[in-house]
Amino acid sequence: MSEIVTAAILIIGDEILSGRTKDRNIGYIAEYLTRIGIDLKEVRVVADDEADIIAALDALRTRYTYVFTTGGIGPTHDDITADSVAKAFGVPIDCHPGVVARFRKRFSDAELNESRLRMTRIPAGATLIESETVLAPGFQIGNVIVMAGIPSVMQAMLDIVAPRLATGSRMLSETVRANCREGDIGTQLGAIARAHPDAMIGSYPFLDEGGRPNTNLVVRARDPDKIAAVRRDIEAMLAQLKLI
Amino acid sequence: MSEIVTAAILIIGDEILSGRTKDRNIGYIAEYLTRIGIDLKEVRVVADDEADIIAALDALRTRYTYVFTTGGIGPTHDDITADSVAKAFGVPIDCHPGVVARFRKRFSDAELNESRLRMTRIPAGATLIESETVLAPGFQIGNVIVMAGIPSVMQAMLDIVAPRLATGSRMLSETVRANCREGDIGTQLGAIARAHPDAMIGSYPFLDEGGRPNTNLVVRARDPDKIAAVRRDIEAMLAQLKLI
Repeated sequence: MSEIVTAAILIIGDEILSGRTKDRNIGYIAEYLTRIGIDLKEVRVVADDEADIIAALDALRTRYTYVFTTGGIGPTHDDITADSVAKAFGVPIDCHPGVVARFRKRFSDAELNESRLRMTRIPAGATLIESETVLAPGFQIGNVIVMAGIPSVMQAMLDIVAPRLATGSRMLSETVRANCREGDIGTQLGAIARAHPDAMIGSYPFLDEGGRPNTNLVVRARDPDKIAAVRRDIEAMLAQLKLI
Repeated sequence: MSEIVTAAILIIGDEILSGRTKDRNIGYIAEYLTRIGIDLKEVRVVADDEADIIAALDALRTRYTYVFTTGGIGPTHDDITADSVAKAFGVPIDCHPGVVARFRKRFSDAELNESRLRMTRIPAGATLIESETVLAPGFQIGNVIVMAGIPSVMQAMLDIVAPRLATGSRMLSETVRANCREGDIGTQLGAIARAHPDAMIGSYPFLDEGGRPNTNLVVRARDPDKIAAVRRDIEAMLAQLKLI
């Protein structure tokens, strides 16, 4: 079995914490990473504050294989992600000649002001995350991947960077509908979970099409045989209770 | 001016990290806290893992006035929030007689199994967050407020607990539409931000009704006079650039 690859997401932005902007990146990245075989283990949201960004970066990049950041790489004074990442890694940061050259093709001299040049600041040693459709690039330095906060741009950047990432064997999952309330089967389910410590079993209540409380049981493991074994035990339990 | 009251949110659940469930609580709680005068400073999402929950709780509860948790207080084996909170505070946890009595009215003896009794486990010294419409209660212990993960239940719990919370003077905000791209005004906006270090100025790009790149400038401060002063400077800058 291949190595397990882990990740954290660091969302940077006052606007998420004030509630003004509703985050749409966590769920997207979470699903994406699961699909390509990277285990998302933690998410943090912090303000546009250098000390907070650096503290979170250092906590996460030492603990997980990758850290994906979103937000704070635009042209205004509150966009301090690139500079904060450079400080966290202890490397200098300056306008990247290649990005400046690309900006010169796109912007007139008057348009290419101090503000727009801010978007060309890339920490020394970083690899760009760029394409024709992405104006201001993201970048990767060490195990930290810095992306835009705007969902469509972030999604394009994730597509660019994904083929470069190490991935582990995919976490597989199967869902069994239990046709009862969570509390009806929690005791039996706990016994099944104890019998299969190498699988994860989640229990998620929902209201079904008849408006009745119902429960989805989600079995997760990397080994399909393990999932099948747990599924058999769950189905036997549900059959014994005459639920399926 | 009254004291500044801060908070963090701790979202607990494998299903958020796998992308299976899309979080809808962060944005709701963020807006709610802003409205009642509590500054949300940080959000973390962690797995259903006792060590991870306790580490995050201890980091957040020592740093902020309040910590709001969601998730992990249901009847199944993966619901370990209450036990983890008890461990973090170093207090015992047991079935709460008052909650058990309420469950006895609602459930038959057969229904009130080990699994459902799990939902009555409350750390010693905690205050319940309960009402007629909330079956399994949340609770507050110290500065930690433990709520359900299901949005409708979480929202009911937040309404119950909010009147008990200390709140500071509200963070006010005003939005000015800049009618240009972020990069057109970033330099001038940075100067205004430096001239008003006691206000927060955010710059948020959006596509306007004509599909053109546009920018909202959001000024935030507790003092309405401060907001008015920053707004005047921003409007003078935009007028000079013939944008308004």
